[in-house]
Amino acid sequence: MDSLKPTAANSCPLTPLTFLERAAVVYADSPSVVYNTATYTWSATNRRCLQAASAIVSLGIRPGQVVSVISPNVPAAYELHFAVPMAGAILNNINTRLNSTTISALLNHSDSKLVFVYHRLQSVVVDALSLLPPEHPRPRLVLISDDDHDSDQPTSDFCSTYEGLIESGDVSEFDWVRPKSEWDPIVLNYTSGTTASPKGVVHSHRGTFVMSVDSLIDWSMPKQPVLLWTLPMFHSNGWSFPWAMAAVGGTNICLSRFDGPTLHAAIRCHKVTHMCAAPVVLNMLVDAKPHVPLQRPVHVLTGGAPPPAPVLLKMELLGFVVSHGYGMSETGTVVISCAWKSEWNTLPPMERASLKALQGVRTIGLNKVDIIDRNSRKSLPRDGKTVGEIAVQGASVMLGYLKDQEATSKCLGDDGWLLTGDLGVIHPNGYLEIKDRSKDIIISGGENISSVEVESVLYTIPGVNEAAVVAQPHKHWGETPCAFLGFTKGVEVKLIESEVIEFCRKKLAHYMVPKRVVFLEELPKTSTGKIQKFRLREMAKAMLNNPLLETNKIV
Amino acid sequence: MDSLKPTAANSCPLTPLTFLERAAVVYADSPSVVYNTATYTWSATNRRCLQAASAIVSLGIRPGQVVSVISPNVPAAYELHFAVPMAGAILNNINTRLNSTTISALLNHSDSKLVFVYHRLQSVVVDALSLLPPEHPRPRLVLISDDDHDSDQPTSDFCSTYEGLIESGDVSEFDWVRPKSEWDPIVLNYTSGTTASPKGVVHSHRGTFVMSVDSLIDWSMPKQPVLLWTLPMFHSNGWSFPWAMAAVGGTNICLSRFDGPTLHAAIRCHKVTHMCAAPVVLNMLVDAKPHVPLQRPVHVLTGGAPPPAPVLLKMELLGFVVSHGYGMSETGTVVISCAWKSEWNTLPPMERASLKALQGVRTIGLNKVDIIDRNSRKSLPRDGKTVGEIAVQGASVMLGYLKDQEATSKCLGDDGWLLTGDLGVIHPNGYLEIKDRSKDIIISGGENISSVEVESVLYTIPGVNEAAVVAQPHKHWGETPCAFLGFTKGVEVKLIESEVIEFCRKKLAHYMVPKRVVFLEELPKTSTGKIQKFRLREMAKAMLNNPLLETNKIV
Repeated sequence: MDSLKPTAANSCPLTPLTFLERAAVVYADSPSVVYNTATYTWSATNRRCLQAASAIVSLGIRPGQVVSVISPNVPAAYELHFAVPMAGAILNNINTRLNSTTISALLNHSDSKLVFVYHRLQSVVVDALSLLPPEHPRPRLVLISDDDHDSDQPTSDFCSTYEGLIESGDVSEFDWVRPKSEWDPIVLNYTSGTTASPKGVVHSHRGTFVMSVDSLIDWSMPKQPVLLWTLPMFHSNGWSFPWAMAAVGGTNICLSRFDGPTLHAAIRCHKVTHMCAAPVVLNMLVDAKPHVPLQRPVHVLTGGAPPPAPVLLKMELLGFVVSHGYGMSETGTVVISCAWKSEWNTLPPMERASLKALQGVRTIGLNKVDIIDRNSRKSLPRDGKTVGEIAVQGASVMLGYLKDQEATSKCLGDDGWLLTGDLGVIHPNGYLEIKDRSKDIIISGGENISSVEVESVLYTIPGVNEAAVVAQPHKHWGETPCAFLGFTKGVEVKLIESEVIEFCRKKLAHYMVPKRVVFLEELPKTSTGKIQKFRLREMAKAMLNNPLLETNKIV
Repeated sequence: MDSLKPTAANSCPLTPLTFLERAAVVYADSPSVVYNTATYTWSATNRRCLQAASAIVSLGIRPGQVVSVISPNVPAAYELHFAVPMAGAILNNINTRLNSTTISALLNHSDSKLVFVYHRLQSVVVDALSLLPPEHPRPRLVLISDDDHDSDQPTSDFCSTYEGLIESGDVSEFDWVRPKSEWDPIVLNYTSGTTASPKGVVHSHRGTFVMSVDSLIDWSMPKQPVLLWTLPMFHSNGWSFPWAMAAVGGTNICLSRFDGPTLHAAIRCHKVTHMCAAPVVLNMLVDAKPHVPLQRPVHVLTGGAPPPAPVLLKMELLGFVVSHGYGMSETGTVVISCAWKSEWNTLPPMERASLKALQGVRTIGLNKVDIIDRNSRKSLPRDGKTVGEIAVQGASVMLGYLKDQEATSKCLGDDGWLLTGDLGVIHPNGYLEIKDRSKDIIISGGENISSVEVESVLYTIPGVNEAAVVAQPHKHWGETPCAFLGFTKGVEVKLIESEVIEFCRKKLAHYMVPKRVVFLEELPKTSTGKIQKFRLREMAKAMLNNPLLETNKIV
């Protein structure tokens, strides 16, 4: 038995890229991507990806180099999930809301060689390039136009348009670059994470293969689903659905506008069956108050934060079937999901909503989930009361952080756990519930905001001695950042809330800017001098209901 | 980037065994296995598997040793797909229709240490043990009773009953044995294959994990399906569905009787949604002529041989949705499947049937499929005409044949292909069609019969100089073996058909015995002296319509 070893026939690398050429055979004439007036078929998408991959190779990009994409959900963004790794390169999706300073830092850190830029983001990226250290070689730029902006001619900063690049691709002699090992990296995703330094999460071909099949099974996706993209593909590569959709020959509906009525119209017009959506999108759908109910159920997968019960109930009344899951950049996609039990269907609405808000159980792509004590690394009781750090293990777990051995080994222990940094309990029925977002991350409109990053800007205000940013509940955005500032004693500071906000606007992406600023004589601290953020969160929450506290914003 | 290597958190072995403990959480109170009057839940199945695994370890079975099961589809057979590998052992399902000589050869070859025996097969297995070489240590036996045969007491040959074993299992301190590597073997399946010597196909944990998720996605299985077992679990481990069903918390309906009316009653009673079935079972379902159509569609996956058009059409009229796939022991499950295109729905019935009879395209678990020239190993044109050997590559491909390096390297080349031995064409649309079963295998009632094995028995008849066995079409069984015999010149042989059949009955499993025997002066041969089986197949087919030839069976 021992003489039977893996051979070339069975140990070929697992990669989601093989889904595409299969889709081009099985679903050749079926729609793959729809955007405005353009509809592509799977055979066209396959051909375009091969052409783009071939052109990327011709530009001199070598296997293992990083290629960045900064774009909203347009067909090019979808195609580049295949084309970039089919050229042997590593796809690095960048959040379109970042400012040029941050983008520059990411391009520098990743040593990106080529950047695909959506036309409306030209100037921020050109600025970012100008901020690169002088010795850093400039990455080349390719311009992604909208189909209704075809007249856009790239400035001299750009080496080509995306369509021009595709046209230049010669696939007659081109074989796409298969990974040598399934552990080869396929994507690099920067997470704001819990500290202010950018951390580059790297996933392997194997990891994304398992994520893709796992997502399909966990969500029971049938063949040829119609997926409405509201989740930005730059968020953890659209939770792996760009690849998964090719496995089942589905249709990707991309939108250039996001508001409730547009979403409802798209659902009706394209016969949408599935959508991934941050809780803020659920609000949009509910607030739009459509006059007609859905013609058929639409399956909605939401994550980031548990959907509030009233929103869930309204969604259900409209005909949406909402599933809730938990994932993070480090796991690529939803790896813990609230698997629904049929016996829960008959419970009262509020009870159903509170069950649906549980993070749930591991998907089949994970090996283990547990709550552990960070110091002793021991498993804690599953009694629904004992709070521990959520730890996961499985094939979806990242390879590690790029060029950050310290952060990698802090997070991926020798004992086989990825420590998520989130705190939770496991109920006696085996379902996990998050009790606290670790390290006080703020989730606003589906975006993770590192409080440390915002605080580091606040600390640059002259006279500021203490700064802490916490989440304040917000009806529309879920959470918004609320800042608390203390001043150096004896220094007289004259500052009002709007000036602090204005200051932050110049240094931070818009969504990271605190919406409220509170001035305190001294921030509450533990005996060892650590700021007690949980008390600040209580204050931020109380401000919503307490006009006295609320107006007390200037001290 | 190069410094990011797999770690314990992401490289934990892929194995389908983790599906069970998850099912015990998510689907705790939902039915897992139903048989006669017994219904188990997923939490019960998980507990029983843990108990059985613990007891198997207590019996002294060590990791990597082989444990055999010879049983029809009863709950024990289902549970042992988990319990045996959870004890670290390798599951070896044995075809219940084999005779004691063959069973003895398999137990000897696999060095099986423990055999689970269905009560009605006691004597054949006890006989098989008596035929083991004297120096070979006797494996222990465990008796599997039917729930309506609970009074069966094992003879002294048996160390325990299955239920006794489960009761003896102590899970208080027991952790199931996780594979050290995902390449560790999990199953050993003997295939009659294409030659007479038993070949032991070994699959790894990784291989069966990929097969399981692949099957779920390719068949679009929803959560909690109801699967009616007509496919014997000892056939390639039920095409991996014992594991896959745990991933989606489905219900396994096991039957003790197989006939058309029983199947239709079970479908109605248990609200069956899915079934895997050999073409012979499709015949049963059609022939039973049910008076009422199905209340909801039942998805049927069939393989082994393309379903004949009239049967397909009748199945569709009854409300069954038939899918057709291709697999073999060496790939574990269906790896090429006739993915249906929606545009085919509007074609005339006969055209639809002929499209459905295509083997189809690779599933997402395979990396590549091709037709190649065996000698040059080169890819052949995909023109629908050029016939080549079907070659596959992917994670579902076996590790190799146990203790048969020669056969393994003949089949698994250094160039990364598993040569299936089957011949086919690939149509311009990318769909594969099998043109000839390699090596003249005969498929009767879903069982593979090696012609070489039958011939080797025929050659032992005194005076027989030439023997060839080919498939003769059969309305019910699909095919039956038809033997052609030539005699040594100058030797007078007086033999009639029934004597030959009687002779074979003593040496072969019933289903392998030729149903017809034809005596010829000389068998047709090529210029190099090889018997031209294709001409014999033509003769066997012609016999069906030609009474003269048919009565000419004694020369």
